[in-house]
Amino acid sequence: MALELSNTERAQVLVQALPYIQQYAGQTVVVKYGGNAMINEQLKSAVISDMVLMQLVGIHVVLVHGGGPEISGMLKKIGKESRFVNGMRYTDEETMEIVQMVLAGKVNKDLVQLLQLHSGKALGLCGLDGGLLRAEKMLASEDLGYVGEITEVCPEIVNDAISKGYIPIISTVAGGAKGEVYNINADIAAARIAAELGARKLILMTDIRGLLRDKEDENTLIPVVNVSDVPRLEREGIISGGMIPKIRCCVEAVRRGVGRAHIIDGRIPHSILIELFTDEGIGTMFY
Amino acid sequence: MALELSNTERAQVLVQALPYIQQYAGQTVVVKYGGNAMINEQLKSAVISDMVLMQLVGIHVVLVHGGGPEISGMLKKIGKESRFVNGMRYTDEETMEIVQMVLAGKVNKDLVQLLQLHSGKALGLCGLDGGLLRAEKMLASEDLGYVGEITEVCPEIVNDAISKGYIPIISTVAGGAKGEVYNINADIAAARIAAELGARKLILMTDIRGLLRDKEDENTLIPVVNVSDVPRLEREGIISGGMIPKIRCCVEAVRRGVGRAHIIDGRIPHSILIELFTDEGIGTMFY
Amino acid sequence: MALELSNTERAQVLVQALPYIQQYAGQTVVVKYGGNAMINEQLKSAVISDMVLMQLVGIHVVLVHGGGPEISGMLKKIGKESRFVNGMRYTDEETMEIVQMVLAGKVNKDLVQLLQLHSGKALGLCGLDGGLLRAEKMLASEDLGYVGEITEVCPEIVNDAISKGYIPIISTVAGGAKGEVYNINADIAAARIAAELGARKLILMTDIRGLLRDKEDENTLIPVVNVSDVPRLEREGIISGGMIPKIRCCVEAVRRGVGRAHIIDGRIPHSILIELFTDEGIGTMFY
Amino acid sequence: MALELSNTERAQVLVQALPYIQQYAGQTVVVKYGGNAMINEQLKSAVISDMVLMQLVGIHVVLVHGGGPEISGMLKKIGKESRFVNGMRYTDEETMEIVQMVLAGKVNKDLVQLLQLHSGKALGLCGLDGGLLRAEKMLASEDLGYVGEITEVCPEIVNDAISKGYIPIISTVAGGAKGEVYNINADIAAARIAAELGARKLILMTDIRGLLRDKEDENTLIPVVNVSDVPRLEREGIISGGMIPKIRCCVEAVRRGVGRAHIIDGRIPHSILIELFTDEGIGTMFY
Amino acid sequence: MALELSNTERAQVLVQALPYIQQYAGQTVVVKYGGNAMINEQLKSAVISDMVLMQLVGIHVVLVHGGGPEISGMLKKIGKESRFVNGMRYTDEETMEIVQMVLAGKVNKDLVQLLQLHSGKALGLCGLDGGLLRAEKMLASEDLGYVGEITEVCPEIVNDAISKGYIPIISTVAGGAKGEVYNINADIAAARIAAELGARKLILMTDIRGLLRDKEDENTLIPVVNVSDVPRLEREGIISGGMIPKIRCCVEAVRRGVGRAHIIDGRIPHSILIELFTDEGIGTMFY
Amino acid sequence: MALELSNTERAQVLVQALPYIQQYAGQTVVVKYGGNAMINEQLKSAVISDMVLMQLVGIHVVLVHGGGPEISGMLKKIGKESRFVNGMRYTDEETMEIVQMVLAGKVNKDLVQLLQLHSGKALGLCGLDGGLLRAEKMLASEDLGYVGEITEVCPEIVNDAISKGYIPIISTVAGGAKGEVYNINADIAAARIAAELGARKLILMTDIRGLLRDKEDENTLIPVVNVSDVPRLEREGIISGGMIPKIRCCVEAVRRGVGRAHIIDGRIPHSILIELFTDEGIGTMFY
Repeated sequence: MALELSNTERAQVLVQALPYIQQYAGQTVVVKYGGNAMINEQLKSAVISDMVLMQLVGIHVVLVHGGGPEISGMLKKIGKESRFVNGMRYTDEETMEIVQMVLAGKVNKDLVQLLQLHSGKALGLCGLDGGLLRAEKMLASEDLGYVGEITEVCPEIVNDAISKGYIPIISTVAGGAKGEVYNINADIAAARIAAELGARKLILMTDIRGLLRDKEDENTLIPVVNVSDVPRLEREGIISGGMIPKIRCCVEAVRRGVGRAHIIDGRIPHSILIELFTDEGIGTMFY
Repeated sequence: MALELSNTERAQVLVQALPYIQQYAGQTVVVKYGGNAMINEQLKSAVISDMVLMQLVGIHVVLVHGGGPEISGMLKKIGKESRFVNGMRYTDEETMEIVQMVLAGKVNKDLVQLLQLHSGKALGLCGLDGGLLRAEKMLASEDLGYVGEITEVCPEIVNDAISKGYIPIISTVAGGAKGEVYNINADIAAARIAAELGARKLILMTDIRGLLRDKEDENTLIPVVNVSDVPRLEREGIISGGMIPKIRCCVEAVRRGVGRAHIIDGRIPHSILIELFTDEGIGTMFY
Repeated sequence: MALELSNTERAQVLVQALPYIQQYAGQTVVVKYGGNAMINEQLKSAVISDMVLMQLVGIHVVLVHGGGPEISGMLKKIGKESRFVNGMRYTDEETMEIVQMVLAGKVNKDLVQLLQLHSGKALGLCGLDGGLLRAEKMLASEDLGYVGEITEVCPEIVNDAISKGYIPIISTVAGGAKGEVYNINADIAAARIAAELGARKLILMTDIRGLLRDKEDENTLIPVVNVSDVPRLEREGIISGGMIPKIRCCVEAVRRGVGRAHIIDGRIPHSILIELFTDEGIGTMFY
Repeated sequence: MALELSNTERAQVLVQALPYIQQYAGQTVVVKYGGNAMINEQLKSAVISDMVLMQLVGIHVVLVHGGGPEISGMLKKIGKESRFVNGMRYTDEETMEIVQMVLAGKVNKDLVQLLQLHSGKALGLCGLDGGLLRAEKMLASEDLGYVGEITEVCPEIVNDAISKGYIPIISTVAGGAKGEVYNINADIAAARIAAELGARKLILMTDIRGLLRDKEDENTLIPVVNVSDVPRLEREGIISGGMIPKIRCCVEAVRRGVGRAHIIDGRIPHSILIELFTDEGIGTMFY
Repeated sequence: MALELSNTERAQVLVQALPYIQQYAGQTVVVKYGGNAMINEQLKSAVISDMVLMQLVGIHVVLVHGGGPEISGMLKKIGKESRFVNGMRYTDEETMEIVQMVLAGKVNKDLVQLLQLHSGKALGLCGLDGGLLRAEKMLASEDLGYVGEITEVCPEIVNDAISKGYIPIISTVAGGAKGEVYNINADIAAARIAAELGARKLILMTDIRGLLRDKEDENTLIPVVNVSDVPRLEREGIISGGMIPKIRCCVEAVRRGVGRAHIIDGRIPHSILIELFTDEGIGTMFY
Repeated sequence: MALELSNTERAQVLVQALPYIQQYAGQTVVVKYGGNAMINEQLKSAVISDMVLMQLVGIHVVLVHGGGPEISGMLKKIGKESRFVNGMRYTDEETMEIVQMVLAGKVNKDLVQLLQLHSGKALGLCGLDGGLLRAEKMLASEDLGYVGEITEVCPEIVNDAISKGYIPIISTVAGGAKGEVYNINADIAAARIAAELGARKLILMTDIRGLLRDKEDENTLIPVVNVSDVPRLEREGIISGGMIPKIRCCVEAVRRGVGRAHIIDGRIPHSILIELFTDEGIGTMFY
């Protein structure tokens, strides 16, 4: 923080952010929080400050989080190996219990506490609260246990929280019809919640620069993608591997009416603010 | 449920509950939920039905829960022994993490899910959400670790939830000034929350009949106690053992303005409804 | 009232009513009150309790009443014979004055007073208040005097009363264009008011079990009738006599958007509650 | 109405009323309506127009009415003699029934209808509606039957009516603790209701010019009286006979916080408007 | 003001205005104020009283004013000649500055002050406030300088003022896209504002009787004109000269949804009231 | 604006402003705008940006302005010399007219237009609108003409404007009891308005660094002054000359309940933001 700036220069920075702030005031922005930005303490603190700042300038910010590493850690503690099927965690009943506990009880409430310490007003929710997320068993070639597919998003509780001035922080477990609970992919949940809220923006925080034309060269970042070009980019192999599901989330969000979806690099401090409050933005934007 | 009643008799029962319902409409009732009623599935379902019914007839119901057995179970799973000091769980950092996870992530959200399945509208909170409970380390003759003493109750989030039609379900972990988290006794938390909400009633669900003049004889139940008589009853040994802290909670709640505090027997199905909707009530009432 | 039930059994009855209550909360139910249930003191008291209970559990209840016997009694007192033409009271100017006085001044306000004594909040209205009912002279083969046909229902005053928490009790006299007042059939008025309020249910209290396949045998009750079957049932003579106008009211109400219309037996205590809060209901339902 | 005025003159009259209108906008004025102004059709129509005009210019107007002649007429019709004790109608049970019917069912609803015909929005109430007036038996040297003394005024229903834009028209029958109904003096009821509403003005319409120093000479009108001078005026015999109870109503109203109380001559068309909208006013004002 | 009327006659006048008042309560009336009525002190005071009276009886009144003579006077003071092109003031930059100052700073605020002195609640606006009027340079055969043509009316600030109980008084200068300011014809601005507000009436105060069939004979006033007849009347020369733009404003207002547009004679005191509150009205009405 | 900063650095600046923003959100800040900052176009634009930014982050900002140079310029244009008595402009009737026109019509509306161009929502008011400022003739040893002393501040119109989302911009002319208009010192008006609004801060923009211990040396700035020390500082000559009235305004504001009053240097771009959003602030603060 050895930023040597005069007060006048600081004021100029604030004023230059003004047109961006005006543009987003009263709009909803859903941030999917994950990756390094959730582990590194300094990045974490930067994300939380960004949330509070966004709320202060009138943005309705909603945080959706994952928590893979914490879940794996807890499973290990009780002597259970994490097992993955096609990149998805196989979730038996005992694992589901741990997933729920870790996400809704630990990761979520720790974020709530951190936001409160930054003088934000936070409310920790999971997909069960107010019936926010309903799901059924995901059907796949190989059984995944309690991995769920969203059947309904009921955003009333999120809107209630926003209207009362809280930043909603959401764990993505969902309720089934018979009282069972499902583990939901956080990117997908964020995309669906953003769509139901009529959000202006969905921001997925990742550990990569964005969509690169050449995966080895960060200078080949593609800053803007029309969602109709995504199939072609997949065929060309530019979108590949772990990027495929993330970008499909972006496409789905945009198709369901979200203004813009972004894949940004959570390893850069304040990447969300940079995205919102500068001209060039950061990462890759889908529209 | 082999209750053989004609429809006219059923209607009579409803009508006879009328004057009690009228009396509580628009009033706040805080229920501390614990003991057998949280373990036995049938009792659990009865409690949840009671909550939904109470809300439907216009009562603002708030549920505060404990979760000792679930915490002990989880600690055991990770190979950690529960340790108690003067009846309070010694809570080191690792234990506190488990306490938070189990209460706010497991017990709380399971209750939320159950209430939603009964067509209620539930919101699971812990003391961190919206800064509901703030605490500091409890000073005792022997160190208790992260066992906390409430320093401040900020009931805004509970009132917000009620005003939006949710039944708030509260886990009693609290935030400290430096971001640490404390384990709070649920009876005490319920008493303090009831006081801050200006509740009409505090109901502590226990595994006993109420205050007995002769502990061995359930026929010696004392139905009504003036809080000013409590010191004498303690001296006489009628209030003793595990009853002492529970009754002190009742006294504190009444002293801080709660209309009535009740110790009721959670082993009786629908004991809350019986307390609210019959003349004689159930258990022991403090005023 | 020698109903011998334990408190737990009583609680069970309340809980079993729960799903029915949830279903009607926030819905409007219009009850046409008449017949024996208005004469027998015990039945009267049961009806009033039912009203208060319905309001307490969130139902918007509206009571529309007749008063034939009281009108005839008063006419007799002033030495005037009641005269009926095709089942309708011939209403000369002096009779109309008595009708208005008895309905709006006596029957209506007595019901208001009774409801208030049961701790309800009642407001007595007639069709003149706030221009609720407007009418013109009913044209018939034989002159009926001031018997009117509804030309307009202006439900604003009823909605205002509901929104302020009152149970509206309505006498069915209506205003004409030149300030004259008309006598309106209460069943028809109830059907029209229910339609204008967008009511979920219209309930007509009568002195019969419902629609019977064989008028002599109460065991032949037809519990459910599709309104499109009514013409056939009339042709078959199953609907006949005094049932014809009552059932036509039900049909009209359903045609104008009321969810369900019911003919129930007002001689059974709490027949309204039984209809609302049990599975099988009571009487005949038109949909 | 052969009032020959140019349009400019008419406009001047409106403008000259302006400062008076401004003074009363948003204020409550309670008018006790009775005497000739209730019998003569032209005076009646003038009073109703005045009410509608007052409401249009933002005055919250409340009408309280009597109905002695109509009651006597109806009693005669059923062959019952009116009997008076010290100027008060002896009210046996049958009489009370007639009083209630005539006031709440006939006089009240006729006024409602008339106001609606003048494009006003009227709601007819009696003291039973919403528990507006509660009373107990008046104790007097000679038994008066169901003549009541007000024990409580609960003005909520009047305020609700005003807030929804209705002109409340009130019949002065009141409910007793056991469901019996009492006949209440309308002047007293008006004074008490005015006090409970925090009215700016109470206006009693009478058949006299006001308080005269010499009863035989209308030129000796006393336009303004300080309520503290009333005892002296009574001793001097200037206040005497039927004036005593009326003026005591004025005194009580002022003592309970009503700004001004007026005795005006209802035989003069538009006497209420003249009182409100001219400098010199009309009749006698008590402050 | 030597108007010799009894109080009863005054009351009759008020009552006779009643049906007109009822008709306009809650409606918006836009008055273009100009001509002699703005110069003669007595007429000015009459107009202001009319405004206050209209507001008191529930009319949402909006005043749009010109100020040609004041502008010319000020220009003269600084030694600048007024120059007119086709009846429009040629407005160079210096003139525009004077126009803005005189209208928004002098004429407008003087009217505000006058209305406040008459106990009205006034708010002086110009087209710049809240972006009320946006304009661009008017293109004409001969350059007019900063004479503008309205491109957008944003009535939010006027509605805000009305909702808070103020009478908005509007100067017709408008903002351009680059911060320049334009001089706008007040008749046109009034018509456009009336249209955007969904006004019931537009009233243009002029110095003529209305549209005359024979300009020399005031007895040939045409009281009512259908806007579709205007082209014919123009062809016939009945509408000619300075009347053409005024009447085109009326036509435009009606075409854009204003209920009625009126040209009235501002030289008659209280001409607005006469128009609103008498049967025959005054001047010429376009519908 | 050649500010070379990385996006991350820009984000850091925003985040560092966060605790200051949080502190002021929902608070009222009154800025007295004057001096060089009103003349230099770049400074002007910076002030306006600051206003818009402050509003966006939830501050209720109110701008009070002077306009001495513009008044003098206009007076000169009409050939009238400005005359000052003890530092106050002698204001004859003609001058008063110019003062009102220039302030309320020119300076005020130009600021409104500028704010609108910066996407702010502005409403230009003067002390006459809604009766905001009432004044009487200031009594001084030498006659000052229409220089006024505030007798009453009625802040309702300012609160209305804030509640509807406008930035109120206020010219300090005030109305007298007889319709005359007074010229009011803008510093004093700002202090009084701040007090009536219960403002958190009053900021006076000047052309000096703040209060200097040695007027010749800007390094001797006194950053913080307790208002109780002001008399001593005056006696010591540290407060002298033109500073005396400005500092007395600060003292009066603080005495009347404004949290803090500041004298800041309007010649520094964004001095208001620097004051609000940095630790050390700028200029001299009075508390």
